[in-house]
Amino acid sequence: MPRIYAKIAALGLVLPEPPVLPPGVDLPFPWVNVRGDKAFVSGHGPQEPDGSLSGPFGQVGKDVSVETAKLSARKTALAILASLQRELGSLERISGWCSVFGMVNSAPGFDRQPEVINGFSEVILDVFGPEVGKHARSAVGLAALPFGIPVEIEAELLLAG
Amino acid sequence: MPRIYAKIAALGLVLPEPPVLPPGVDLPFPWVNVRGDKAFVSGHGPQEPDGSLSGPFGQVGKDVSVETAKLSARKTALAILASLQRELGSLERISGWCSVFGMVNSAPGFDRQPEVINGFSEVILDVFGPEVGKHARSAVGLAALPFGIPVEIEAELLLAG
Amino acid sequence: MPRIYAKIAALGLVLPEPPVLPPGVDLPFPWVNVRGDKAFVSGHGPQEPDGSLSGPFGQVGKDVSVETAKLSARKTALAILASLQRELGSLERISGWCSVFGMVNSAPGFDRQPEVINGFSEVILDVFGPEVGKHARSAVGLAALPFGIPVEIEAELLLAG
Repeated sequence: MPRIYAKIAALGLVLPEPPVLPPGVDLPFPWVNVRGDKAFVSGHGPQEPDGSLSGPFGQVGKDVSVETAKLSARKTALAILASLQRELGSLERISGWCSVFGMVNSAPGFDRQPEVINGFSEVILDVFGPEVGKHARSAVGLAALPFGIPVEIEAELLLAG
Repeated sequence: MPRIYAKIAALGLVLPEPPVLPPGVDLPFPWVNVRGDKAFVSGHGPQEPDGSLSGPFGQVGKDVSVETAKLSARKTALAILASLQRELGSLERISGWCSVFGMVNSAPGFDRQPEVINGFSEVILDVFGPEVGKHARSAVGLAALPFGIPVEIEAELLLAG
Repeated sequence: MPRIYAKIAALGLVLPEPPVLPPGVDLPFPWVNVRGDKAFVSGHGPQEPDGSLSGPFGQVGKDVSVETAKLSARKTALAILASLQRELGSLERISGWCSVFGMVNSAPGFDRQPEVINGFSEVILDVFGPEVGKHARSAVGLAALPFGIPVEIEAELLLAG
């Protein structure tokens, strides 16, 4: 088994099914867009293993606790790994994470976005290790996110030649 | 007539004049910045054909309806195409859209950002087609945008060698 | 003395020490991530010369004035130059700024984000000049930023071959 998949298995991580959106929603773009040697990852939210959006929903610091939102960020990492797996065929094609933009649906005055997005970064570093998994990052507070998801994350990755 | 321009003409789209900013505003950066084989597009808002900012202004979900904001996103697409045309000389130089970051000036609780930004994506796909026009995307809720514009969009594109 | 450093000295700019974070904060990512010929800069806030976060804190348009926030954006530019210097070894390796994403912690109704982020752009243009320093930019209003910083900025740069 290739290294990355052995790691995912050893960590007991489960990659979810393709995103299942609420009825009537049309998203006319791919979850991952490969251009040249880069993979551009669309904004993902937390998913259940069956692909449906994973709650709780609402603003972190009011409706959702930091600990729960960190778990949402972790689920978002798994959703992104699943999308990359489907688009790339193999996660082994990733030669390096470039940047991660972590958006937290934030109640007024909430300022602990980095703790929340650490739930994402920890999965990436666990799976890819410190060299390939290393990423530039921002973790900031959004006024609102689609469908009331507590966390949305987009990313850019470098692919092997 | 090159394919892209034939498409723009057939769709009846009008690319606006260069952005005309409110008096006293200094924006010390280009609307499009080409580096290597990439074009980086600065955040644009909706424009009138004469280049002036196009209203209505304010927060979507309170001051501006979803339908109207979707039209603002459509106007933003035309503004970006006009900037790309001016900087690149020809839209034919674009070999692929990489990523789009769609920002919606959102009232508290507004969570239909994807519907709004679809107004942008639909123009890009209509003009460039599904392969060149394909883009990764996020559509999220900002607390505030410059000059009270309802939508602001930035993007990254790949240019032909 | 190389050109860039002569410029920094002539302008009297002081690059701060590495970021010193509040106790208990874990940020599992680098401030600058080099991948291929690109440098991806993580979101930075304003720093004091000793590396500590620089106040005032809070929302621009309520707790912090435009003029003060512009100074925060200027300090953020110096913090990013310091991080680039540490990661790259020399700022002379930068062949061009690609894009800058300027985030302003914005009170409801505040819409003068471009004036604030001009404090950043002016430093970059002063130090690197109009060709290398040229950057695409967005300047937008976030609902909240980590630790209550008034400004956070991330960027992408092209490095010389």
